[in-house]
Amino acid sequence: MHIEVISSVNEARADRFTHRTAIVIDVLRATSTMITALQAGAVSIYPVETVLEARTLQRQGYMLAGERFCRKIPGFELGNSPNDFTPEVVQGRRIVLTTTNGTRAVHKAMRADFVLSAALLNATACAKAAIELRRDVVLLCAGCHDDFALEDGLCAGLIIDRLKALSSSSVGIDDFGTAMLGLYHSSKECVAERLTASSSGKRLIKMGFGRDIESCAQLDTSGIVPKLQGDMIIVG
Amino acid sequence: MHIEVISSVNEARADRFTHRTAIVIDVLRATSTMITALQAGAVSIYPVETVLEARTLQRQGYMLAGERFCRKIPGFELGNSPNDFTPEVVQGRRIVLTTTNGTRAVHKAMRADFVLSAALLNATACAKAAIELRRDVVLLCAGCHDDFALEDGLCAGLIIDRLKALSSSSVGIDDFGTAMLGLYHSSKECVAERLTASSSGKRLIKMGFGRDIESCAQLDTSGIVPKLQGDMIIVG
Repeated sequence: MHIEVISSVNEARADRFTHRTAIVIDVLRATSTMITALQAGAVSIYPVETVLEARTLQRQGYMLAGERFCRKIPGFELGNSPNDFTPEVVQGRRIVLTTTNGTRAVHKAMRADFVLSAALLNATACAKAAIELRRDVVLLCAGCHDDFALEDGLCAGLIIDRLKALSSSSVGIDDFGTAMLGLYHSSKECVAERLTASSSGKRLIKMGFGRDIESCAQLDTSGIVPKLQGDMIIVG
Repeated sequence: MHIEVISSVNEARADRFTHRTAIVIDVLRATSTMITALQAGAVSIYPVETVLEARTLQRQGYMLAGERFCRKIPGFELGNSPNDFTPEVVQGRRIVLTTTNGTRAVHKAMRADFVLSAALLNATACAKAAIELRRDVVLLCAGCHDDFALEDGLCAGLIIDRLKALSSSSVGIDDFGTAMLGLYHSSKECVAERLTASSSGKRLIKMGFGRDIESCAQLDTSGIVPKLQGDMIIVG
């Protein structure tokens, strides 16, 4: 198995995904939110790039969720805080999600044979699922405003660590993946601190979303692996 | 002091260098070669982007050095192997150097107030010099064919480690810099192995330049800090 890591959405050329399994990572917060929503019983998540697209789908009974500049979009029922996606709110619902980086990353990865979503919450489960799909793997760090985001790189490193441990075949890793694995190895005792000190973490704390960071910093608390099927994300 | 790291030449927008000290890193091999050449007594290095420019300067008494696809350019006196730049060969000489990534990176950084060249060989000396220049610092990893190169990221992490240790003012680091610092911390016992396992390292070994990797993997063996002055690189 060959593993590559793309540092941000900006770097994601479509041809890098062909014949591969893509793992999209947006730890703060889109993919953490997807995992939490599906874990809480949401039926499906429809990732869209614009607010207009989301509003169009509202008329078909979808629940609207998402953020711009970290904040809930006016008229939407939910923002992008995983803590808002409780079973009471989302069970049995179909959700439209639009976020600044994460949902864009899913769209960029669509040429892959399979598109999974990962965060710290489901890293090991996602690594296991990727191995079962028997493709080379490209990890797409969503990043933030076209820049690398520390928490996504750290999560990529964690997933590579798990892929190496769990794969029965030999694993080749590109230079950026090796760097992220090194980052994870030097950070595994202080994952929550890394998130708090990251640019996205600082921004969320400043805007009053500090509790989201705690939720997103949990390792392997979920066995849910969100998987793209057509235009929808469902439990893989 | 604020520190940013750019992952490859491809990512280097000119505005990121304004009012800053740029540190250009191309461990395998351009900046290691510059340090070695100046250490061996070369008077100056003229970094040019094309073979044609280099040939034009030959008529003015410059010694031509450089590579394309790792190999010496036909008609050039020297390639890009630091080991070729001995005092016997380069003392008192002015050298034109053209390489695939490193010299291009120097040109990209030219808008900075100061442009230094770094490699593992001079990491601590370069950090000291940057502190004395009293600017925010942007480290430009040259990378390889527009991609991130592990050895350049590792060197960036090492320099950040030294900047943090030596700076008397507080140091802020962007997310990519924090990741590279983490990479360095997890690699400091195995720097040579990291270079050997990197994409550039593997390519050089395959082409018979394994000895260059050993030379470039030495830490802090030189106090030389190449510095751009006008169009020339001289001892800073």
